[in-house]
Parts: sequence; C-alpha cells; structure tokens
Amino acid sequence: MDRHYHFIGGDRGGWRVTRIDAVIGASLDAVARLEVRNSLQLESAPAGTWALRGFTSNVRYAERDEVTALRAVQEGLNRPEARCAALIRIRKNAAWWALAQDERREIFERQSRHTRLGLDYLPAIARQLHHSRDLGEPFDFLTSFEFAPGHTADFDRLVAQLRETPEWPYVDREVDIRLELDGA
Amino acid sequence: MDRHYHFIGGDRGGWRVTRIDAVIGASLDAVARLEVRNSLQLESAPAGTWALRGFTSNVRYAERDEVTALRAVQEGLNRPEARCAALIRIRKNAAWWALAQDERREIFERQSRHTRLGLDYLPAIARQLHHSRDLGEPFDFLTSFEFAPGHTADFDRLVAQLRETPEWPYVDREVDIRLELDGA
Repeated sequence: MDRHYHFIGGDRGGWRVTRIDAVIGASLDAVARLEVRNSLQLESAPAGTWALRGFTSNVRYAERDEVTALRAVQEGLNRPEARCAALIRIRKNAAWWALAQDERREIFERQSRHTRLGLDYLPAIARQLHHSRDLGEPFDFLTSFEFAPGHTADFDRLVAQLRETPEWPYVDREVDIRLELDGA
Repeated sequence: MDRHYHFIGGDRGGWRVTRIDAVIGASLDAVARLEVRNSLQLESAPAGTWALRGFTSNVRYAERDEVTALRAVQEGLNRPEARCAALIRIRKNAAWWALAQDERREIFERQSRHTRLGLDYLPAIARQLHHSRDLGEPFDFLTSFEFAPGHTADFDRLVAQLRETPEWPYVDREVDIRLELDGA
C-alpha cells in the first residue's frame, strides 16, 4: 500500500486550506487544514471532516516521447520553495469510461493536449496524479500540484486552459482546493 | 466497492479446485475449494488458506474496433453450461510497468495479438479480467475463464498460445488454478 495516500480535510495537517471552489457540481465541506498521509503511516481510520483516497500508478495515456519529455524536466512534490498547492478532485461521466482506449487517448491528448499543456508549466508547477475510481471513491482522480507563490497566476492559467479543452465536457464533478504552508 | 471481488481458497465455495500449477515462479498453497464473493457481500475479512482480491475496470488497451468485436460475441460468466473454470494469476515485472502506454500496447496487441487471440475462442471461453496491482496485492491481474467441459482442450490451447507471445517474458509469476463445479 506504499502508493496509496489519504488526503484528510479537518483541523490538522501541514497545509492551510485557503479556498475550496466547486467548479462543476457539489463542493466539499469547508475545512481549516489538510493532512496528507501515506497509507503505510495510518494506524487507524483517518479522522477529519472528509478523507479522500488515491494511489499513484503506471501512465495510462502518455507515449514514449511524452514520458521522456516529462522526465527530463519535471520535479517532485515537497520542494522547499513550493509553498502553495492545489488539490483538484475530478469525476468523469459514464460516457468517458465507456470509451475505448484509442478514443480516450484521442480526446485526452490529440484534441486536448493534456500532457503537453502541463509540460509547458514544468518544472515550476509540479504535478502528481492519484487514481481513485477503482477504489470505489465518489470521484475518479485527485491531482496534487505544488508551486512557489510567484507561480500562482501561472497555475490559474493552466487550469483555465484545461477546462476549455474537449476533454472537460466529460468531467461531471470538479472541486478545486487551494492550500498554503504556514508563512507562505 | 461493487466492482471488487475476493477469490478465497479454502474448504468452502461453489468451485472445486482440481489443479494448481505454478507456471512461472512460486505456487499457492493447495486448497480444496474456491469461493468468489463480491466485496459488497463481505461482512468481515474472508477466512481461507489464501484470499486474492481484484476489481473490474475500464479497458486499458482495447481500441474501438476490438471493443466492438468483443461485445458482439462475448458472453458473461455464470452460464449454466460453463461448469469448468480457470483462475489465472499473473504478475508482470518492473520493466513492463515502466513502459509508456504506446510501448505496452505495441507488445500487448500488435506483437502478441492478446485481444485477438481471446476473440478466436469466443463465445465458448468466457473471460473476465480483474486488476490487483493497484490494491498492493502480490500480483497484478486475476483473470477468470469459464467454459463447458468439452472446451477444456481449447482453453489449454489458448493459454499455451498466450505463453508463447512477446508479452510473456514480462510475466515474472503465473499460477494457473483449475476449477470445476460439483458434478461437472
């Protein structure tokens, strides 16, 4: 379970919650702080107003040239300068999941340039995808983004661009949670 | 959790275990019977000599023409005449999981014709894939096959063909569990 994470919204944790925006569909209850824990560190069920779960996994759409381009420039989470973060929670509709692999790839990358858009913002905006749909969670993906305070406007532009793509009509719920470390 | 299943090897369940063959790597402990339960039906942790878990999910490699061809001819599990079954438990190595999506698709279908091979045996050999890797299980996939007793030799030919493909060197553990309903 070392690739499984819990994102626990409540009154504890290293991240201060500055905003929770319901972009599409219902929001989440307001919380003061967010705690992120690897499942291996959990001794019992997490306490908090809400808890979201997800796991990292192999790439599902990226082709070799894209994987190589990403690995050449991307940086990991937890950089000392990255004192701002976002946790974006997405659910896609049944029509998306009924598509074949080539149909989803066509929309995701050839039409929407999802990977290429993110690449334009590397290494400033670090990104880690967590999958949730196959855990029976009420959403499909949880993506963590981390960046320095000076890159907040860049991040806003990135998510605005993604929300204009042909992929986004398949999103039927999206909640955008913004976070800061104390003193950011 | 309605797409999550437990495959419990022990002394109860509707399937009689007739053979457990370690095809690649270590085997599983011998058991007399296999019980298959949907996670929603589980009231507590399953008892048994071993328990394997997996979930059904969206297609990961099949393209539109393949999905359409499969749906036109495939039949589900639990047909009354399908009194024989196999549960094949597979783990793939780290090199496989480090490949990009197009590299895995190339090996899985263009070189190995994995989907097309299975299609040749439809509707006689029904098939249901369960994913396990993202649950932290010690293997990656659990595939259930069900067929009438008269198609046992066909099933043996199908798995022999798959084991000769360019995909199979990436398999580093495989256990083949054969099952029959009482009176089969």
